[in-house]
Amino acid sequence: MDTIEPKLLKGFRDYLPEQMIPRQRMIDTIARVFERFGFAPIHTPALEYAEVLLGKLGEDAENLFYRFTDHGGRDICLRYDLTVPLARVAAQYRHLRMPFKRYQIAPVWRAEKPGKGRFREFYQCDVDIVGTDSLLADAECIAVDHAVLTALGIPDAVIRINNRKVLAGLLDALELGGDGAANAQDILRTIDKLPSHGEKTVRALLAEKNGLAPDRIDRVFEFIRIEGEPEAMIEQAEPLIGGSQAGADGLDELRQVIEFARHMGVPALELDFTIARGLDYYTGTVFETFLPQLPDLGSVMSGGRYDHLISGFLGRDVPAVGISVGIDRLFSGMESLGLVEQAKTPTRVLVAPMGPETVDAALRAAHRLRSADIPTEVYLKEARLGKQLKHADQQGIGLVVILGTEEVAAETATVKEMESGDQTEVPLAQLADHVRARLG
Amino acid sequence: MDTIEPKLLKGFRDYLPEQMIPRQRMIDTIARVFERFGFAPIHTPALEYAEVLLGKLGEDAENLFYRFTDHGGRDICLRYDLTVPLARVAAQYRHLRMPFKRYQIAPVWRAEKPGKGRFREFYQCDVDIVGTDSLLADAECIAVDHAVLTALGIPDAVIRINNRKVLAGLLDALELGGDGAANAQDILRTIDKLPSHGEKTVRALLAEKNGLAPDRIDRVFEFIRIEGEPEAMIEQAEPLIGGSQAGADGLDELRQVIEFARHMGVPALELDFTIARGLDYYTGTVFETFLPQLPDLGSVMSGGRYDHLISGFLGRDVPAVGISVGIDRLFSGMESLGLVEQAKTPTRVLVAPMGPETVDAALRAAHRLRSADIPTEVYLKEARLGKQLKHADQQGIGLVVILGTEEVAAETATVKEMESGDQTEVPLAQLADHVRARLG
Repeated sequence: MDTIEPKLLKGFRDYLPEQMIPRQRMIDTIARVFERFGFAPIHTPALEYAEVLLGKLGEDAENLFYRFTDHGGRDICLRYDLTVPLARVAAQYRHLRMPFKRYQIAPVWRAEKPGKGRFREFYQCDVDIVGTDSLLADAECIAVDHAVLTALGIPDAVIRINNRKVLAGLLDALELGGDGAANAQDILRTIDKLPSHGEKTVRALLAEKNGLAPDRIDRVFEFIRIEGEPEAMIEQAEPLIGGSQAGADGLDELRQVIEFARHMGVPALELDFTIARGLDYYTGTVFETFLPQLPDLGSVMSGGRYDHLISGFLGRDVPAVGISVGIDRLFSGMESLGLVEQAKTPTRVLVAPMGPETVDAALRAAHRLRSADIPTEVYLKEARLGKQLKHADQQGIGLVVILGTEEVAAETATVKEMESGDQTEVPLAQLADHVRARLG
Repeated sequence: MDTIEPKLLKGFRDYLPEQMIPRQRMIDTIARVFERFGFAPIHTPALEYAEVLLGKLGEDAENLFYRFTDHGGRDICLRYDLTVPLARVAAQYRHLRMPFKRYQIAPVWRAEKPGKGRFREFYQCDVDIVGTDSLLADAECIAVDHAVLTALGIPDAVIRINNRKVLAGLLDALELGGDGAANAQDILRTIDKLPSHGEKTVRALLAEKNGLAPDRIDRVFEFIRIEGEPEAMIEQAEPLIGGSQAGADGLDELRQVIEFARHMGVPALELDFTIARGLDYYTGTVFETFLPQLPDLGSVMSGGRYDHLISGFLGRDVPAVGISVGIDRLFSGMESLGLVEQAKTPTRVLVAPMGPETVDAALRAAHRLRSADIPTEVYLKEARLGKQLKHADQQGIGLVVILGTEEVAAETATVKEMESGDQTEVPLAQLADHVRARLG
């Protein structure tokens, strides 16, 4: 018989139970945190009109989209991110109550060259608050970031905050004159390379690529080298950039967001004037999250305020602020730190019948446990106890409920703890309570 | 400014919070039931090689796929279902422990003409047990069906079971002779139309389309009209089809599966000899689930045993049995029965600051509640109490925590119950406990 080779496309992956169980638990925990802050889930389709998803992106970006013509001749794409669909939703449904707080955890597709940790299908996990310019919303996103870290049991993570207006203030202070505005984004992009490329390269780029004179480059570095507690840093920055309206506004916003975030339970927030974030659309608060134990990992969660994104659909700005959890990177970081609890199966208890005459009793015992919401498996074929115990051992199932003819006659079951080997005979009526206590 | 019209492709839909919150709760409940039976989640990609997904389907089926050529010239498709990817997974990863119990809840895409209740993107929700021919697995799938209904609070649903071997036995008993085998599938497909088309039409089709003589048609109806308790029905069927090996095997399997299912807590299972299920790949047990209050809804969960599906990849049969929950149909059925708890937001508590001087205290109160895992929102702009209460009312938020200057000075908060209008002043240290008790 002609068979088809079972294989995956390059850049795509399966998650088998061992990978999927801890990952799904992480996602469930994150979703629960989002809901704790009042964010509601939404779903948008994987396929949309190319015109909607591509928006005003250039030709370069278009090559990263999975784009094709459907049976009806429509030019369509698989979504590239969750932010553009959010912008569409916010523009399309005029009855949505603002501020609109939504989260979405869903796959996106990018026709990029796959590489280490870079896939053509991956999950994005975004919360956003659309329709308010209140700095409370910025602080709330940072509080969500911190609460996600806490809920996942990640210690010592550092959230670094900055504000794009502060960087605009720096550019004002450099007195770049008439062509300054056009140049500003390029300078920010160069500054953003500092953590990865180092000071020497960035100095060279600022001179060669951005055309800054040596004294201006010194002033850039005088500014971005300010360190210390946030309040002290803001005080030091004021004489350097406070003469610019944007700079003064940016420093005020930083002061306010940091204070709000503290009241929302974010104890330590680091101010970092070098954070610009790569994307051009950020307009105010920007922040990133790092695990200091894993300096090469990069930011695991990041976000900021973007006030222009929805204008492509509405023709007017709508203020918005959001945060994106880098699920894959965060998960791999947690794995490196030993914070991921491995599991091959959700099953906590194996029910082991001893021969065909005790199968019915085994099924009834399993039903008792499942009715008590205890994940339970029945060994699905006839096998000696040794084989069934080996299965429990290999799958990491901690308890085995053994049903032999004696137990069935006595209306009991023998509960064996795999780790200690301890066995206890328990009346069936108490089986669920006993097992629950053993599972802790 | 040139704007892009925010619109969806035909046959696709967004789920906004009001639709998504109850739907997500339903999906979470179902996943929890699956895990209670030891099924593990897996993920497979949305995009796969066309060769893999299309398999040996004909040209007609190919038109239902979203199929295109990627940047690398590969012929690829969006998945059409979750069963073929499961077959691929089972064939591709030889280390998977059999029986392999997995579930997957994910969207699929079909380039069909959209219509009432028929979309081009929709969720499938499947559990399957691959790699065992034990009838315990068949019974377990039926127990999952019943447990899903119970967990969702759906009363009086009816699971109807049959076995394809019984139907094969019927065809044997009709002594169709040489060309019987080729004709058998067509006759089953005609019988499957009985609930929707009625006896008269089915009789006419059996005569005209399937070429059965009148006495044979009478025998078909004598058989499929058998009614009553399962055991009695099996007894009545035995003289009609028990002479055929397939028929005798089918009746034995039915008897056994029904008994196992009873021990697994499925009290009443209806035997229905007319259920054939449209798909040709079922080989043994077949079952469907109906809500008697909604006779036009159709089956909300269905499944059965299919032993040939994986052979396309492996070149040999692998036994498998599964169940598919029709999420959309089930949800719409639950809506009709008033079983869906509506919600516009996950928020249970609104924290309302009275002016800017109490905002910090409001943020701290919100942090207390969120730390106790109580979904809490802070009103994100300055507003009078009336406006904030109106928001809570419109969004269905049951409790409002009011923080005025007096409360802040006294380290208390006023908790207002929206429905009764009752207000209680509570010390901040007891706020979370008080709110939790009020929420019940």
